[in-house]
Amino acid sequence: MIIAVDAMAGDHGPGVIVEGTVQAARQFDVQILLVGLPSELEKHLARCDARGLPITIHPASQVVDMEESPAESLRRKKDSTIRVAFELVQQKKADAVISAGNSGATLATAMFTLGRISGLRPAIATVMPTLKDPVVMIDVGANVDCKPSHLYQFGLMGSVFSSTIFSKERPRVGLLSIGEEHSKGNQQVKKAHDLLATSKLNFIGNVEGRDVFKGNTDVIVCDGFVGNVCLKLSEGLAESMMEMIKKEMSESLAAKVGYALSKTAIDRFKKRVDWAEYGGAPLLGVKGVAIICHGKSGAKAVKNAIKVANNLARENFLQNMEKAISNFGLVESSDNHEA
Amino acid sequence: MIIAVDAMAGDHGPGVIVEGTVQAARQFDVQILLVGLPSELEKHLARCDARGLPITIHPASQVVDMEESPAESLRRKKDSTIRVAFELVQQKKADAVISAGNSGATLATAMFTLGRISGLRPAIATVMPTLKDPVVMIDVGANVDCKPSHLYQFGLMGSVFSSTIFSKERPRVGLLSIGEEHSKGNQQVKKAHDLLATSKLNFIGNVEGRDVFKGNTDVIVCDGFVGNVCLKLSEGLAESMMEMIKKEMSESLAAKVGYALSKTAIDRFKKRVDWAEYGGAPLLGVKGVAIICHGKSGAKAVKNAIKVANNLARENFLQNMEKAISNFGLVESSDNHEA
Repeated sequence: MIIAVDAMAGDHGPGVIVEGTVQAARQFDVQILLVGLPSELEKHLARCDARGLPITIHPASQVVDMEESPAESLRRKKDSTIRVAFELVQQKKADAVISAGNSGATLATAMFTLGRISGLRPAIATVMPTLKDPVVMIDVGANVDCKPSHLYQFGLMGSVFSSTIFSKERPRVGLLSIGEEHSKGNQQVKKAHDLLATSKLNFIGNVEGRDVFKGNTDVIVCDGFVGNVCLKLSEGLAESMMEMIKKEMSESLAAKVGYALSKTAIDRFKKRVDWAEYGGAPLLGVKGVAIICHGKSGAKAVKNAIKVANNLARENFLQNMEKAISNFGLVESSDNHEA
Repeated sequence: MIIAVDAMAGDHGPGVIVEGTVQAARQFDVQILLVGLPSELEKHLARCDARGLPITIHPASQVVDMEESPAESLRRKKDSTIRVAFELVQQKKADAVISAGNSGATLATAMFTLGRISGLRPAIATVMPTLKDPVVMIDVGANVDCKPSHLYQFGLMGSVFSSTIFSKERPRVGLLSIGEEHSKGNQQVKKAHDLLATSKLNFIGNVEGRDVFKGNTDVIVCDGFVGNVCLKLSEGLAESMMEMIKKEMSESLAAKVGYALSKTAIDRFKKRVDWAEYGGAPLLGVKGVAIICHGKSGAKAVKNAIKVANNLARENFLQNMEKAISNFGLVESSDNHEA
């Protein structure tokens, strides 16, 4: 598989992106098109000792800043690294694309270049660790004001993603709400419950916030506002808890020794709750495989995003999606029956 | 202060409620009216050796089940422990009330007996631990479909609560959203941002999920759907993380010894993230001090809820609220200017 990587994006600059790319090229069976300013990328590649690896630089002359307006950048920067990387997929010169850039601009570029799959509202999925298998949460930020039919579409897309990546046969789809009974939730969620309950998806009903990390659900559906808040809340809480534990552990000699002795266990635990382990967040519902990475992605996150992109492309994710649409059917939004 | 306690509620039955009440009566300067079936309560009081403590049984003959419909229970059970406990506050025979019962029924009973403060939409606040001082989150479940003006009202009420309980002079009020810029959020949140930004509250702008546990905000405003999801997600994640740590720590001898040595530190940490430490969740916006406890509250949570109820009553929370309404002004909802 050929993966296009927007190399100039992210909070840490091209250095970590190139590093992650080199790690991926060493570990996985992939070819990489590294999109960016050749002079700069050559410098970083040399530093990483990338000779002999299947990495090719694909030039693009403009960089979209993290704060730039998505619409503006799309209009003005026709040779931006984001745009060129996505166009490689559109032109079938690459099988998938990843970007850690301005996420609004990435989203807009994906819509503009790849286009949406008819009948689907594109959404961002993310994978979160649980006590059992990881869970897919969708949408975590592409759509802040959703209709019930969009939530059904998220369930469908999340289901195909879970089948493709985690080989789940009939992924259990739950609807994030504030109680298990179908009568619980806001207007949007109650209507979405009805749509999901009468669909052919393996819908297990409402799930609550406390269920997310138990691992009894494969796909959790929510609107992009709620999902984004949940994602960042979880990241923030996990980080704060690690900080609190470390602080408490540094306050007595016994605890310090204890910390040292349990270091491996603590590291294993850290790895388990480390979001970078799961790579970026796939943008589902567009006509191409695209992974959006956190702006603050380090090399490990980039490497893992390439792994996810590679797996999705290899497992024919887009064809699986088409099959699922014809199996499960679409519920399209219509303002007639949705308030 | 006199606190009315609905003693028959909660998932664990009256035993733990009585136990928490007895602990509170020993530690704090309170008088308790224990509302429930006298024969049963006497038995539990005897078991806890409550002689000489300022605890009086106040009889009520009916119990509202956890699954009962709020409207139904309000109509049919006029001598329920929830209702009688709230009526004690309404009739000025108690200064505050706490219940760990059916939260829908508790909410409905509070509205029916105490009534709402004119111009305010009652909401449930909760206190969450952070890296610095605890933060007040409001609403965490009373209102699942909110108007922007309600979010302003939550900011006002949360602000008064924070001042009263944590002696904050000008509590920093943040609006939960998906980005710091005022342009980020859904329709409801963007309009609420405008209302809060032009108010006299100490509004610090949007905060993200990751900011909740940093402790740089005193009051976090959100609708009751988002707040309830966040609250349960945080509880679930904290519990799952503790479970993961314990599991990792039990997998090697070194780690086991390490765990034993760091036990005190881990216990201090557990206490820090233990929701029961912060007691129940106050229902703000009604004409009386009322605390709603988690159904699964143990004795410690009940004791701490009584402490919070006592502090709110002692610090003249209701008068502070009236003062704040006249200082900060009200924004009432009107369907004309709110979509």
